[in-house]
Amino acid sequence: MTQRETALAGHLTPAMIAAAQKEGMPPEFIRTGLAQGTLAIPANVGHHNLDPIAIGTGVRVKINANLGASPHDISLAKEREKLAAAIRYGAHTVMDLSTGGDLNAIRTTLLSECPLPFGTVPVYQVMAEAKRLDDITADHLLEAVRLQAQQGVDFVTVHCGVTRKALPLLKNRVTGVVSRGGAFLVAWMRRFGRENPLFERFDELLDIARTYDVTLSLGDGLRPGCLADANDRAQFHELRVLGQLTQRAWAAGVQVIIEGPGHVPLHLIKKNIRLQQKYCHGAPFYVLGPLVTDVAAGYDHIAGAIGGTLAASLGAAFLCYVTPAEHLKLPEVQDVIDGVIASRIAAHAADIARGLPGAADWDLKISQARRALDWETQIGLSVNPDKARQYRLSSRAKDDQCTMCGRFCAMKVFDERFDEREKD
Amino acid sequence: MTQRETALAGHLTPAMIAAAQKEGMPPEFIRTGLAQGTLAIPANVGHHNLDPIAIGTGVRVKINANLGASPHDISLAKEREKLAAAIRYGAHTVMDLSTGGDLNAIRTTLLSECPLPFGTVPVYQVMAEAKRLDDITADHLLEAVRLQAQQGVDFVTVHCGVTRKALPLLKNRVTGVVSRGGAFLVAWMRRFGRENPLFERFDELLDIARTYDVTLSLGDGLRPGCLADANDRAQFHELRVLGQLTQRAWAAGVQVIIEGPGHVPLHLIKKNIRLQQKYCHGAPFYVLGPLVTDVAAGYDHIAGAIGGTLAASLGAAFLCYVTPAEHLKLPEVQDVIDGVIASRIAAHAADIARGLPGAADWDLKISQARRALDWETQIGLSVNPDKARQYRLSSRAKDDQCTMCGRFCAMKVFDERFDEREKD
Repeated sequence: MTQRETALAGHLTPAMIAAAQKEGMPPEFIRTGLAQGTLAIPANVGHHNLDPIAIGTGVRVKINANLGASPHDISLAKEREKLAAAIRYGAHTVMDLSTGGDLNAIRTTLLSECPLPFGTVPVYQVMAEAKRLDDITADHLLEAVRLQAQQGVDFVTVHCGVTRKALPLLKNRVTGVVSRGGAFLVAWMRRFGRENPLFERFDELLDIARTYDVTLSLGDGLRPGCLADANDRAQFHELRVLGQLTQRAWAAGVQVIIEGPGHVPLHLIKKNIRLQQKYCHGAPFYVLGPLVTDVAAGYDHIAGAIGGTLAASLGAAFLCYVTPAEHLKLPEVQDVIDGVIASRIAAHAADIARGLPGAADWDLKISQARRALDWETQIGLSVNPDKARQYRLSSRAKDDQCTMCGRFCAMKVFDERFDEREKD
Repeated sequence: MTQRETALAGHLTPAMIAAAQKEGMPPEFIRTGLAQGTLAIPANVGHHNLDPIAIGTGVRVKINANLGASPHDISLAKEREKLAAAIRYGAHTVMDLSTGGDLNAIRTTLLSECPLPFGTVPVYQVMAEAKRLDDITADHLLEAVRLQAQQGVDFVTVHCGVTRKALPLLKNRVTGVVSRGGAFLVAWMRRFGRENPLFERFDELLDIARTYDVTLSLGDGLRPGCLADANDRAQFHELRVLGQLTQRAWAAGVQVIIEGPGHVPLHLIKKNIRLQQKYCHGAPFYVLGPLVTDVAAGYDHIAGAIGGTLAASLGAAFLCYVTPAEHLKLPEVQDVIDGVIASRIAAHAADIARGLPGAADWDLKISQARRALDWETQIGLSVNPDKARQYRLSSRAKDDQCTMCGRFCAMKVFDERFDEREKD
């Protein structure tokens, strides 16, 4: 039985209890959310070292870090380092998006070292292993999903909503299709003149997902790749298809997450979230950013944190990180850290804005330490204590001073300590 | 005659024409805004190398970079470097907040090298030069403003709204008063048992401001220093006082900007902006962040960009940057760059969200270059071409590739180039 089937049968699983504990919620809340589909616990029956979490309505916003080698940059050692950094700096899930190297070796190694829910995009393996487009069959697509499910992957991105009906809607786009999986399926459908197998053979996909309790992350293959393409007919057409597939998955006992954009200007984010909620019946929304401008290459973690905070404050449940390397190159370890921290700031700010009980306790504690000029506690409570400590040390500040204000510190002056001189 | 007086008399100045040109607006639009007070052109009659800009409603959101030495970290050379970086990376204004070193030498040197509107907080000079609080008189405060106005400063922060009536409202605050100027005035009022001279002698302040056409940036001395203190009675009490002073300044022909918070959770930003608009009669709102969480020390430029984007999309006109060094130490040159870029992303994203005509043209151009795999144009159009180029070079990508996707590039696959192999 999947987590969803067990929840529907009215029973609790150890995963539900563990996930509830992390949120400080009663397990029954988690069970109800799983039964309704508003929560998912990605937990493959074969992922033995998993520490389960819940993603969706009413729990903390979660963040995902993408890892993975590319044909240009293949190093299992570096991917292991990225995984360790993602875990250390606070990612809630990771995805291995490798398209280069020995994909099975990278995936199974990372998975064996990963207590976080672990996601993949199985179509990448098909793309990477094929010599030519003509060699790729519908069976290959299904078999890649089955293989990775057997390996213990907790959630898979499957671009089931990229259908032939959507093709005419792409004509006037500025950046066409920017999802690698989406672009591949479009190219495959055009080459063979056939429907997307992940759509046509969705029931087979559900069989695989149910067998291993793999959560389907229904991919946004037609997400906008620039502001000019945001909220267009192609994206919303796909979203409506994903909503229909969600109900079929739920009926089959399979857990679902819905993927979303992408590049969306701030004022269009609300409509995007509202339509997802309407079309997809409350399934958790997993957004990539969204990036509120196209010009921030080198700083897309910031553009993504801006859009992600607003999206999550309006109901998105799961933020895929964006790193400073986005649009430029494969991320390095430092990019992974920067991306994780930016997304955590966004998720936390959104938890506060949504009024999640207890979310602002962290802020209150650090502010009380700030008021008390208690630097050790402030640093320990910072979103990345390593960086805060390094900044503090590099300033060579003494005692309770900081080099910004010194004796003109507002905290001190407010306490009538203006006349105090530094011992220097 | 000040810019405002000239505008009220129905005439255009060279500054209005230059500012209008930068916005692609008719000069008459700028003149009307100045007359109504919804726009300001900070332009001291003695700042000879100034390239004027307009700040306020209907023009691009502007960003300010804070510079300045502290008693712990005094180097004119470093401050000149920071100024050069702020100009190079796209700040619209700078403020010299020095509290250490030869303040007049630093200020006049930076000012002579600065074509941007240049701001200061004159009370810092009083604080820095006094031996004890008891030595400081009301005259000192007014004289510091006069001295800096004579030196050519374009706008000054004056905490005129920190009055004795506000003191009882501060009792239950978590972080008390976090504005250095605000905390100093509270300490002064308590020590002497007298009213804030910048409030009591506001007409003298207006005389100085009118004489040199110094724009008054009415300081938010009681801004919240943590989420728990956001939108409290103390802040809104001060804001109401600033609204009354705004009308007196306008009646005297003096230009006004209103300063705002600070630390504000995302869901409370809207109320903050709406009350500023209501109390302050449409005067331009200049916010510091706002920071949407207290825990982001080391990454406060990101927390500030999130809050700043939302604030500016709702009507704030002017964003004071926050750097990664905030809450930890005096910023270095790299912090200045990071702060400027984060704020520019926020300002630009807000311009798009507000529907400013032409704001998204930049995004369209870079996206067209991205679709064409035209890397040189993409890099040139990035918010910081230096960083984008360095990332691209460090990846050692060849031809039209990037190391993220290589031949699996969605742009190429969408163009049916899946079967292309890299020449390697």
